Amino acid sequence: MEKFLISKGRRTRETPYTSRIEKQGLTSYTVYNHMLLPTSFGPLEESYHHLKKHVQIWDVAGERQVEIKGKDSSKLVQLMTCRDLSKSKIGRCYYCPIIDDKAGLINDPVILKLDEERWWISIADSDVILFAKGLAIGHKFDVNIIEPNVDILAVQGPKSNKLMEKIFGKKITEMKFFEFDYFKFNDAKHLIAKSGWSKQSGYEIYVENKESGLALYDHLFELGKEFNVKPGCPNLIERIESGLLSYGNDVDNNDNPLECGLDKYVNLDNDIDFLGKEKLKEIRKLGIIKKLRGVKIETKEINVSKSIKLFDEKNNEIGELRSGAYSPHFEKVIGIAMICKPYWNISQPFKIKINGKTFDGKICDLPLI
Amino acid sequence: MEKFLISKGRRTRETPYTSRIEKQGLTSYTVYNHMLLPTSFGPLEESYHHLKKHVQIWDVAGERQVEIKGKDSSKLVQLMTCRDLSKSKIGRCYYCPIIDDKAGLINDPVILKLDEERWWISIADSDVILFAKGLAIGHKFDVNIIEPNVDILAVQGPKSNKLMEKIFGKKITEMKFFEFDYFKFNDAKHLIAKSGWSKQSGYEIYVENKESGLALYDHLFELGKEFNVKPGCPNLIERIESGLLSYGNDVDNNDNPLECGLDKYVNLDNDIDFLGKEKLKEIRKLGIIKKLRGVKIETKEINVSKSIKLFDEKNNEIGELRSGAYSPHFEKVIGIAMICKPYWNISQPFKIKINGKTFDGKICDLPLI
Repeated sequence: MEKFLISKGRRTRETPYTSRIEKQGLTSYTVYNHMLLPTSFGPLEESYHHLKKHVQIWDVAGERQVEIKGKDSSKLVQLMTCRDLSKSKIGRCYYCPIIDDKAGLINDPVILKLDEERWWISIADSDVILFAKGLAIGHKFDVNIIEPNVDILAVQGPKSNKLMEKIFGKKITEMKFFEFDYFKFNDAKHLIAKSGWSKQSGYEIYVENKESGLALYDHLFELGKEFNVKPGCPNLIERIESGLLSYGNDVDNNDNPLECGLDKYVNLDNDIDFLGKEKLKEIRKLGIIKKLRGVKIETKEINVSKSIKLFDEKNNEIGELRSGAYSPHFEKVIGIAMICKPYWNISQPFKIKINGKTFDGKICDLPLI
Repeated sequence: MEKFLISKGRRTRETPYTSRIEKQGLTSYTVYNHMLLPTSFGPLEESYHHLKKHVQIWDVAGERQVEIKGKDSSKLVQLMTCRDLSKSKIGRCYYCPIIDDKAGLINDPVILKLDEERWWISIADSDVILFAKGLAIGHKFDVNIIEPNVDILAVQGPKSNKLMEKIFGKKITEMKFFEFDYFKFNDAKHLIAKSGWSKQSGYEIYVENKESGLALYDHLFELGKEFNVKPGCPNLIERIESGLLSYGNDVDNNDNPLECGLDKYVNLDNDIDFLGKEKLKEIRKLGIIKKLRGVKIETKEINVSKSIKLFDEKNNEIGELRSGAYSPHFEKVIGIAMICKPYWNISQPFKIKINGKTFDGKICDLPLI
């Protein structure tokens, strides 16, 4: 694939860490929530192996927060997601599909309950703040909605526990997955969650104090030397193997959560009030006609910059590949695809054309590992 | 400035013209409304001179449409903008600031009135569709809101009239600025407006029929040979000289339309109903405390990837530069800056640090030419 440069401007916002990562060997960016998000520090595969063995620091400030505060904040947050948040607890993160009134996905954020009347929606790439504002204005909700200055640093990889313990003490390693708490560094308090966009274990530091965040960034690299720390970013190979969905890539507004395998985050059987509930009930009753699946393809190279059609042996179109990468683990290309009924069974064979050549593939479950 | 590559994926959508522009010498991209937007075909200055003399074809599919249709469509569109649309006419384009209930800018689209109950909002870079959906749901408006498959081709430059006349006949040259009409090409009907994001004269073709659009793209280059046609894109130098604002660069949600010099698109003195009206009345009464201005700087080079502070001779911070480029016309750097009261007078001198060196500058009016 031919390579092109990225143009910078104030609109594609820098993060507090931009000048640091550019000195540390950054090679490419994407734009995520109107912000620069690093996508590689040299070869993807090298970074993949490193992430699975050691520890990486990621500038994921592009994962912006939508803060919803006030008397009606819980009502608004619940209205936006089909996941039942009625029993949600302060200090916990919740993966929540956000859908519109037609049950189309708008985002798939992690929602943090900071307080009974204060929430952070840690968003994928779409302007959820505009949806929240529109709903709040239309419903005359008593809420205040802002994008706070929060720039997340992720610490990911199997050695993240040791590195974080060295800085914040034993207590941080005792947090369970998707819990968060506050930890001090240089007199500044940081919200830290046991979370992150890899399945290699890790933390996300929601940095509000920029100065302290920069000092912490440098400290993580200083103390991380013994754990072979490196700068990194969400890794395409690892996240596909792990079945971590990317909004806009694997799923979008034309898909509903049942089609995306998010059934366990869909609560239709109690009386919570959210957008698209009636539509989802109708969909559940009729049954879905497409479903997100993993795929394995008998080749070693792929670049997915748009959907690629999949065909069965009789040349029927059976679905489309939406993300893909060569996996050193499987020694072939793997990917995430939206597959039509009745072709979504495991082991269903298909054909795919990549750069003019046809290859064989098979449907598989998600996650792949 | 160091150069970095852009990573592609389905999330940063290709346009129908992507494969063509990549073969025509494209060198860089940005991401705009979750879509690839070309930003250069070789040196910026060369393209600037060419745009001012000849004719260019631009892939500006990133300028997405939000279609609002239905009984309450006019009510919803008016609710989102402070510009009075009560006398708007079918077949006309309207530049409209979209603001929230706090009068902060959300977008500055051109709105096309297609029919009494059907509108296209031709957006700058933010998910206006989510704002519209949220408002419509909250207000229980009877509307249907979609992002239609419209991929704009812009034909810009002084020779655009001749080229378009050759394809579509004399009638197209008779349209006034910001009028639109329908024109046939290869049996497909295309909505074409006398508009575009340059002041060098031009048209925007709202392509709905992709096949016909691709044939038209090739035809424009074929017939354009005698006019020295070239592929192009919005030109940073030309658009700053012309004072064409870029949402996210020059203005954002922290600015209101009065601060951005958009006074003539703000209607506070009749009874139309829009968000932020009371807030704008309050702001008008108190007076604004910052204002968008042009600047000229005594140097030949600049790269603005974030705001750069401006100081007066006593080292008071007087504002920030938000966009900038070297202008061959002025033989110096020009830019767009947000300037604090009382420093916004024309000819106010300032100092600015660029790459460690301090330069002199002066405030000027917008547009610069």
